[in-house]
Amino acid sequence: MKQGKQQGRLYLVGVGPGDPELMTCKAVRVLEQTKVWVVPKARENGASSALQIVLAMVGSVDKEVLEVRFPMKKIRLEQDHDPEVQQGWQDAARIVLARLDQGEDVAFPTLGDPGLYSTSFYLLNTLQEMLLESCRELPVTIIPGITAMAACSAQLHAPLGLGDDVLSVVPAAFDDTRLRDILLTADTVVLMKVFRRLPAVIELLDELGLTDKAVVLERCGMDSQRIYTDIREAAGKDLHYFSTLLIRKKQINKAVS
Amino acid sequence: MKQGKQQGRLYLVGVGPGDPELMTCKAVRVLEQTKVWVVPKARENGASSALQIVLAMVGSVDKEVLEVRFPMKKIRLEQDHDPEVQQGWQDAARIVLARLDQGEDVAFPTLGDPGLYSTSFYLLNTLQEMLLESCRELPVTIIPGITAMAACSAQLHAPLGLGDDVLSVVPAAFDDTRLRDILLTADTVVLMKVFRRLPAVIELLDELGLTDKAVVLERCGMDSQRIYTDIREAAGKDLHYFSTLLIRKKQINKAVS
Repeated sequence: MKQGKQQGRLYLVGVGPGDPELMTCKAVRVLEQTKVWVVPKARENGASSALQIVLAMVGSVDKEVLEVRFPMKKIRLEQDHDPEVQQGWQDAARIVLARLDQGEDVAFPTLGDPGLYSTSFYLLNTLQEMLLESCRELPVTIIPGITAMAACSAQLHAPLGLGDDVLSVVPAAFDDTRLRDILLTADTVVLMKVFRRLPAVIELLDELGLTDKAVVLERCGMDSQRIYTDIREAAGKDLHYFSTLLIRKKQINKAVS
Repeated sequence: MKQGKQQGRLYLVGVGPGDPELMTCKAVRVLEQTKVWVVPKARENGASSALQIVLAMVGSVDKEVLEVRFPMKKIRLEQDHDPEVQQGWQDAARIVLARLDQGEDVAFPTLGDPGLYSTSFYLLNTLQEMLLESCRELPVTIIPGITAMAACSAQLHAPLGLGDDVLSVVPAAFDDTRLRDILLTADTVVLMKVFRRLPAVIELLDELGLTDKAVVLERCGMDSQRIYTDIREAAGKDLHYFSTLLIRKKQINKAVS
């Protein structure tokens, strides 16, 4: 850190599931006030999804947008990482740290909620590890966001939990034997980013008699949203990465007005 | 419905966990545009919590605020209700329906997310049952909100789920034997509105060696927020109804900067 300058603050900003209006007022304010934004490097469709959402609500005239490359391999926080993955995070963290050390605040907009399967925590952890070596603390503010599952619930007019319901949320990376137990125990199960595993999941749901209690929502809350009330139809499609499967045992309102 | 007038639309509006800035831009816009708000009748502290949050962001000059009495007994959606509870919901629904039938839109602001243990779905269901009798459909829009657990995660700088973590959410009303299974299976467990059951929960957590992985957050995101990193301390306190217990097996960052 340069002498006389206070270290900048890192903001992890949840921007919600896709509809820019589902950004919180706080997310909009912080992104307006922060001059440096860091976003994942665009892959397929031009700008990153999070950046596109932000740009619909906040002007970018006076902003500096740092594109960093995030490795998208399957990662777990407390396991040894793939060297490529580790290198990617460290490179990204160094770019961010350089700006924080110049006393600039940096905002990292992230889809959905930073606390739920978002990349932002990998960035935060890598930064914290780097600073630990020099016994420095990182000033951080996390701004929660609307999750894809909350947007799905709202779209379907079906609650995620009511009364004494138990809700379980299972990510895409999930492939151990717990899924059966979870499907038997919980009242509502949300399977995030289900696209590739859908045929295997349908087989299990068929066996447990739960297929008719399930709905798939593709790109929920985005313009291109699609709802499959018959999830067998979705299995034949080339589903987008942003696909959520919602299983509600007690009741699901498949008619939406 | 009066002739020639289109039926009004019901908006269930999530207003988030307490910090008014955590309302979404959509929630603010819809509440600004809707002239009739329906809120639970104030009990202890004057205005209802949801209304207080809304009033911090939206002016009430041109609004009509209908206070309805919601019974707060333990209820489950698909079980026979206590007659008093049922009567309460029907009275509330009739007040709302009268305004919708006059062609007015009605907004119901609700704490957190409407899909997660909120009262708004009871109102919606009661209205839908009433309209079913006359084969009418209710135009409804649900606006998702930031949950208390997302606010807790943000405050603690601890993710609810990362990588292949399973998250389970268990409400206060919960008192069957599944809690032990859930604590054994899930990576992160959120116990909502834990206040009265805390001593019993601590006993179970002690037995499973999980007490040190748990944090209690009281009124998270509100001005009077309190965080108990030693949950045994919280057990001796007269905790507020809005208390959330977060158990994260893999890692919880108890130091917040």
